[in-house]
Amino acid sequence: MSLKVPILKLYDCLIVSIQWELDDQMAMMFQEDLLSKLYETEAKGIVLDLTFVDFMDSYIAKVIGDAINMATLMGAKVVMTGLQPSVAITLVELGIHLNSVSTALNLEKGLEQLQKELGV
Amino acid sequence: MSLKVPILKLYDCLIVSIQWELDDQMAMMFQEDLLSKLYETEAKGIVLDLTFVDFMDSYIAKVIGDAINMATLMGAKVVMTGLQPSVAITLVELGIHLNSVSTALNLEKGLEQLQKELGV
Repeated sequence: MSLKVPILKLYDCLIVSIQWELDDQMAMMFQEDLLSKLYETEAKGIVLDLTFVDFMDSYIAKVIGDAINMATLMGAKVVMTGLQPSVAITLVELGIHLNSVSTALNLEKGLEQLQKELGV
Repeated sequence: MSLKVPILKLYDCLIVSIQWELDDQMAMMFQEDLLSKLYETEAKGIVLDLTFVDFMDSYIAKVIGDAINMATLMGAKVVMTGLQPSVAITLVELGIHLNSVSTALNLEKGLEQLQKELGV
């Protein structure tokens, strides 16, 4: 059984909700999947929902930060939603700068914001 | 690590995308999760996306069929999307009747249809 983070396509966006703790292998697979799905579907934006992530170690944080930067390079807008305080702390303390990324409180607001940014 | 089928809440709907083969235990957990999330979030509808399911054994089909009927009893409208021929065959051959369920080709169309049915 391959355990992948599910990536949903809705309108022009990809929706990714990480609902369990990722191990290193899953995180790398997620990065690859996200980028190839972005290429395949020609989506214009990504909503990355982290509502259910309450802990993120430095490796996972780096892989996810990289994935976001890569997706941005590929031309997608990224909105992160539902960051818990501990995750925000990890990201900032590790010096992972996500300048190109907007954030929103929850999935709905994130999708709205993304569509506004994309001018839909 | 608990392997759950992720359930996303978007607007008044729950979106569930099954992207890997479920085993018996995961299917039962999915049934419970779906119903309790439905109760918690007071969602009015469910889009169940089976695009990535290419095989379904009789037990899983029954559990999913039951989950749909239970959700309908709880007052939710259910739309199934992306059924592959083999899955449709299994459901019909097993005599799992999903009269209350509409279907749509893909997630986007399913969500549109659900919102139309809910009169949003």
